[in-house]
Amino acid sequence: MGSEITDAAIGGVFLKKLNQIIDNRGALFHFISNEDPKFSGFGEAYISKTNPNVIKGWKMHHKMIQNFCVPQGRFLFTLFDYREDSATKGFLNQFTIDDSINYFRLTIPPNIWYSFKCISDTPGLIFNVTNIKHDPNEVELLPIDEDSIIPFRW
Amino acid sequence: MGSEITDAAIGGVFLKKLNQIIDNRGALFHFISNEDPKFSGFGEAYISKTNPNVIKGWKMHHKMIQNFCVPQGRFLFTLFDYREDSATKGFLNQFTIDDSINYFRLTIPPNIWYSFKCISDTPGLIFNVTNIKHDPNEVELLPIDEDSIIPFRW
Repeated sequence: MGSEITDAAIGGVFLKKLNQIIDNRGALFHFISNEDPKFSGFGEAYISKTNPNVIKGWKMHHKMIQNFCVPQGRFLFTLFDYREDSATKGFLNQFTIDDSINYFRLTIPPNIWYSFKCISDTPGLIFNVTNIKHDPNEVELLPIDEDSIIPFRW
Repeated sequence: MGSEITDAAIGGVFLKKLNQIIDNRGALFHFISNEDPKFSGFGEAYISKTNPNVIKGWKMHHKMIQNFCVPQGRFLFTLFDYREDSATKGFLNQFTIDDSINYFRLTIPPNIWYSFKCISDTPGLIFNVTNIKHDPNEVELLPIDEDSIIPFRW
């Protein structure tokens, strides 16, 4: 089984175009509600701010489901499916998410390696709504330049 | 009973200093989890973007509890307690909330009139986590310059 950047979404990964209601005073950006079909409970909401050109990752959660949106700036996300029992094992996905034409909600299930780069000229913000509260015991990290598990180089 | 801008918090209004973990790559801004003592359930998360000097309000929810934080920019919030049965009826509160030294979570209970102004040079973002999904039937609005109910002029 080869590993490639593909449009076939990794199993459990979900990308949803979100609504923005824009007027001359500003905007209202939808994100997530308890009535969304993909909503999986609320554990924590926090914000990650990333400076331009900075790459964060690799990171994998064993229990947490994450829901990201980008209300400011632009990010490129890279995801890798390393689950033994996954029909999409070995798949890489990349998604560009931002505050304008690519205003998406990205849902990442557990046991997916992910990293992201801020590709806007100004710092980017990622809002994350998760199904469980942060727990360092369910997180794994790899160096961003590791070269044995994840077939992708930034 | 007079109405005045006061440091005595309106009953049910809660301001909590939140943690920011800052490094040279960016920052992680805490916001709210299901273990916070003031957490009242999850209905919806959304983002309000407001241009500099724009004032939004007045608005009041009959059921929704709101939890605001400001991960970008700076806002001045004004709150007015119009609840008949409130020990703080007639009280006005003002809070400055921003992404740096005033990084607070502001909890507003139902039946409080509120409005806010973006007082930063760049657009401000408010991240809102509410206990119920948006429902237009439980919202009331007043013109920002109304002069019979709320004893405050922007």
